[in-house]
Amino acid sequence: MGSSFHINRTQNHLKWSKTVPPALTVDSGATVSFDTIDGSGGQITQNSTSADVYNFKVELADPVFGPIYVNGAEPGDALEIEVLDLETADWGWTAIVPKFGLLSDEFPDAELKIWELSKFEDRPYALFKEGIRIPTRPFLGEMGVAPGADGEFSTIPPLDTGGNIDCRHLTVGSKLYLPVQTPGALFSCGDGHSAQGDGEICGSAIETPMRATLRFTVRKNHDWVASPHYFSPPSAIIPGFEDRGCYAALGIDSDLHEATRKAVRGIINYLTGTKDLTRTEAYMLASVAVDLKLAEVVDMPNFAVSASVPLNIFHAT
Amino acid sequence: MGSSFHINRTQNHLKWSKTVPPALTVDSGATVSFDTIDGSGGQITQNSTSADVYNFKVELADPVFGPIYVNGAEPGDALEIEVLDLETADWGWTAIVPKFGLLSDEFPDAELKIWELSKFEDRPYALFKEGIRIPTRPFLGEMGVAPGADGEFSTIPPLDTGGNIDCRHLTVGSKLYLPVQTPGALFSCGDGHSAQGDGEICGSAIETPMRATLRFTVRKNHDWVASPHYFSPPSAIIPGFEDRGCYAALGIDSDLHEATRKAVRGIINYLTGTKDLTRTEAYMLASVAVDLKLAEVVDMPNFAVSASVPLNIFHAT
Repeated sequence: MGSSFHINRTQNHLKWSKTVPPALTVDSGATVSFDTIDGSGGQITQNSTSADVYNFKVELADPVFGPIYVNGAEPGDALEIEVLDLETADWGWTAIVPKFGLLSDEFPDAELKIWELSKFEDRPYALFKEGIRIPTRPFLGEMGVAPGADGEFSTIPPLDTGGNIDCRHLTVGSKLYLPVQTPGALFSCGDGHSAQGDGEICGSAIETPMRATLRFTVRKNHDWVASPHYFSPPSAIIPGFEDRGCYAALGIDSDLHEATRKAVRGIINYLTGTKDLTRTEAYMLASVAVDLKLAEVVDMPNFAVSASVPLNIFHAT
Repeated sequence: MGSSFHINRTQNHLKWSKTVPPALTVDSGATVSFDTIDGSGGQITQNSTSADVYNFKVELADPVFGPIYVNGAEPGDALEIEVLDLETADWGWTAIVPKFGLLSDEFPDAELKIWELSKFEDRPYALFKEGIRIPTRPFLGEMGVAPGADGEFSTIPPLDTGGNIDCRHLTVGSKLYLPVQTPGALFSCGDGHSAQGDGEICGSAIETPMRATLRFTVRKNHDWVASPHYFSPPSAIIPGFEDRGCYAALGIDSDLHEATRKAVRGIINYLTGTKDLTRTEAYMLASVAVDLKLAEVVDMPNFAVSASVPLNIFHAT
């Protein structure tokens, strides 16, 4: 897909700040392509092993590429980002990084899986193991603009201005709206994901370098967009992944975070009990394929959270 | 749908307890039909108004119908409940009950909407207002078995043994698995819903009396089912409600509950800003049509929750 503007792999930063100098200035309506490295910042390669994960430096994780100064963007506007094209590398990784992830206390050991990713339409999935296929639906884990507040902010937690929102629905055809808090907006992106469930349970998706093509439009006077909003297009049915329903476990607790953890433990029990998976495998599979939904948030004092696995990822072997 | 066994409207109770005498005893494999009143316990009728909601007695809410003693069900087993048929009444209600609901502090006033529900296949939706149609996908908000612990437990909060899980995915064709904690399981159900979004945001769905036909099977030695688990069938496309994508707002906060509240405020802002709805209307519409998903639960210290409205509920007028 053609674009006149380009951001390369060296044009990255590790903090959100309105003081980061723009890598590029464009007008509203411009299309920009980005060549991004993965969320490890290149620390994990196709040849890495679980042992390498122990040396993972969190302070180098989640680099974002940019920033783009968009002429005319002012505080009170929204920046619309259309996702025009996303192309992953031919490999990806999923890791359990110690002290990171929803059940980090129960999974203290480092673990790494390297995935082979196909760019060919006749194999629109990544093979987890024999009989388990993850349909690929690429998106950028990080898309954000600079906060209006003074200071530097880590790119790891998401903010009202976006960043590491890890929202799997931002596939090609979607539109993201971010609140502009500083002149020019200062947009950056990164953290390519080939597939992920709602929640990113173990702390990583199928992480991959990604080429992204995005179009930017300033929407004036959109101050009702106070956090990331988005349009997500109809889900195309991926051949071989027709809907076969889902199996889900509910977690019920008076603490919403603990209810979420219970739901994940429940689906891990299902996966290890019925699919010949170790607990570690089930936890990593959950991160790339299980969706976390809030079943009810009103029947106090207890919340109900659902961890739901689509059954079309399981193929007879 | 035929069944030899029946539970009527008078066979209800307001507490979960293993001391509630069975209304019926059946063998594993039996099919039972239930004639249930709505979640208000009959306090709200087709002729009620918002003023009546101020007199709502929470202690009479969420009656459940049963219990059914299933021969052979023992602690350590799971009770499988197949949802064979659900038939709503021709009316329903959605209310804002003061001090109840996700944003109860921001919506202090009582509000009531009475819906007309059609049983005809040529109108598989409920009309919210001109141009906004909610596809009907009935389910029981309450399905549960008696807790093993001594004592009486309100039917309002869900428990590990189920109850008020308000899980909208338990439509016809689904199977629910509940952990048996007392001999015979002692299953009851109620709280019919014609439609609801994931979360039941304002505290009520489209509430309606419901006739339900369920089949019970004891699954021996299923102690890995420690909370409600379920299979949900492929979603049938309802005519007129083809997928048109969704619009969503993210709420981002270091507290997961507050992130959820922010997401709902965001989608209310979208609905009032673009769809000619009052804030009260938007809050009630969110409860019956907006889905809450956990976008990410790992990028500490901040969570990202998505409040997502399917765009196929909006029709040109």
